[in-house]
Amino acid sequence: MSDKVLLDYGSGGRASQRLISDLFLKYLGNDELNRLNDAAELSMSGRISMSTDSYTVDPIFFPGGNIGSLAVHGTVNDVAMMGAIPRYLTCGYIIEEGLPMDDLEKIVAAMGEAVKKAGVLIVSGDTKVVPKGTVDKIFINTTGVGDIIVDPAPNGASAKPGDAVLLSGSVGDHGLTILGTREGLDFEAKVESDSASLNHLLVKLVQELPEVHVLRDPTRGGLATTLNEITYSSKVCCELIENDLPIKPEVKGGCSILGLDPLYLANEGKFLCILPEEYAEKALEIMKADPLGKDACRIGTITDTNPGKVVLITQLGGKRLLGMLEGEQLPRIC
Amino acid sequence: MSDKVLLDYGSGGRASQRLISDLFLKYLGNDELNRLNDAAELSMSGRISMSTDSYTVDPIFFPGGNIGSLAVHGTVNDVAMMGAIPRYLTCGYIIEEGLPMDDLEKIVAAMGEAVKKAGVLIVSGDTKVVPKGTVDKIFINTTGVGDIIVDPAPNGASAKPGDAVLLSGSVGDHGLTILGTREGLDFEAKVESDSASLNHLLVKLVQELPEVHVLRDPTRGGLATTLNEITYSSKVCCELIENDLPIKPEVKGGCSILGLDPLYLANEGKFLCILPEEYAEKALEIMKADPLGKDACRIGTITDTNPGKVVLITQLGGKRLLGMLEGEQLPRIC
Repeated sequence: MSDKVLLDYGSGGRASQRLISDLFLKYLGNDELNRLNDAAELSMSGRISMSTDSYTVDPIFFPGGNIGSLAVHGTVNDVAMMGAIPRYLTCGYIIEEGLPMDDLEKIVAAMGEAVKKAGVLIVSGDTKVVPKGTVDKIFINTTGVGDIIVDPAPNGASAKPGDAVLLSGSVGDHGLTILGTREGLDFEAKVESDSASLNHLLVKLVQELPEVHVLRDPTRGGLATTLNEITYSSKVCCELIENDLPIKPEVKGGCSILGLDPLYLANEGKFLCILPEEYAEKALEIMKADPLGKDACRIGTITDTNPGKVVLITQLGGKRLLGMLEGEQLPRIC
Repeated sequence: MSDKVLLDYGSGGRASQRLISDLFLKYLGNDELNRLNDAAELSMSGRISMSTDSYTVDPIFFPGGNIGSLAVHGTVNDVAMMGAIPRYLTCGYIIEEGLPMDDLEKIVAAMGEAVKKAGVLIVSGDTKVVPKGTVDKIFINTTGVGDIIVDPAPNGASAKPGDAVLLSGSVGDHGLTILGTREGLDFEAKVESDSASLNHLLVKLVQELPEVHVLRDPTRGGLATTLNEITYSSKVCCELIENDLPIKPEVKGGCSILGLDPLYLANEGKFLCILPEEYAEKALEIMKADPLGKDACRIGTITDTNPGKVVLITQLGGKRLLGMLEGEQLPRIC
């Protein structure tokens, strides 16, 4: 193969087949994908969670991952947030003519490692190569399906007054890392994307707890925007204690230099868990026992005081309304 | 809303929500999508067909459709080729900052019409807006799932010597239309893309016939490449009768001017049906009764003479090997 991706690798003809068997099947192959049918034949149970995301992150390589691993983590997490065991993914690559083949191989290899770790299979794929200048390097879509194992499924509209609001770890890491890498900023302390598949921990939570109302990952728009979506859908208020919000000192520092608010920065390996007060302690115990939840903590409570609003109780005891993200802090964050 | 798509429409924040409710839900809304969860909750039977495709067609509007309708037809067809009833689609939009809002609305509206006609629902979506120059106008990924209703499912590896090879209509229309529109060519006779959802006709076929070995749509790479994939997977030979290949005179004419071979041009509303000789007549009857199959005909026979090869019996009685597509005739054809 050439050391750059050529247009005819996306033609659907012989060159495409070579790219697929020499690269994609090498890292992602399994019985179903290897059949190379236009569609996969899957066997699944009755209630299915399905989610899609296109990844356009810039830069495509960053501390803590690359666009290939991110494309697995993001979709695996969205599928799992429904109380589901993610099972199968599809992937659609859109590649710019001339992308170094080494870069593509690193990306596909990272995707292969990520699916192995998450315990999912890529069962169907599509590769397009478009002329130079019509896409910036590479965009990847992944779509996932999984078996929902709880009834009712956790849902953004199910938060109830009195519920505890838990967060699986610190916020802002992914967003700041992407911006820092893109702009070539050298922060004093190292920051790294938190990008990871959370499904194993999430499945443990819904299996071991009698009731979980909401699971949601605060990606684009960050923690503040995600909580606003939940309070809007559930017609409840969320009161957050500013002192309890886990933000790493290096992320706080980087954000204050750049004028960014970490509560609006994307995360790719964190989740919110909203559930009845009585199960909060047990949930934190389960989360902390997992490396991906070791910094889990309670950040607030659902109330009925200001339906649809997110209220921050500040360090000075005042109250501040946290709105949704307005404008765009950072395009191509994921 | 602005008359152009702005970066913050893809932020995940308030502007994104406005775009989603004012545009996407207006044309694509249904009970599941309206929930706006990160994943959809679906109810499906045990054997599922799943397929993905990213659409990068240039130009985005062309005679016979646009990128929005094409993105539905292509994926609905791939799902249905497994002998499945397509049920649910996801869609991921990647939009270039500055795309006229009118264009986006036309595309989403066409997608809405196409899903209605195909009888499927869009249940989950994702919208990214990327800075000007990082994508050419708009790319769309759709991923679909459907219930497989026959056992075994039709499959590229199931063609058997003696099988009849049927084609649902003329080839080359889509490819020539895209190239003609892109280059501003004015053919004497009007050509138009054949882009259409074939699922209703396909379901009728697998329900009414006792046995169908292969269903496959000859998209990228065209009829010749698709048949090569099938003969390779099934370890059989396909003998085609050149005189029986349905190619419209205007497509033949346009291709000969441009030096293109219609057998290698993409189609978006045609399919190959390979099945036991004894059911060929009944299959043609069913196909011809549907407007999308009215020009259906038999084009050849599966044999065991040259496994893995596609042989064209020419008008002069000679034999010519039809290989897979080499190189790239037309990037961004779908």
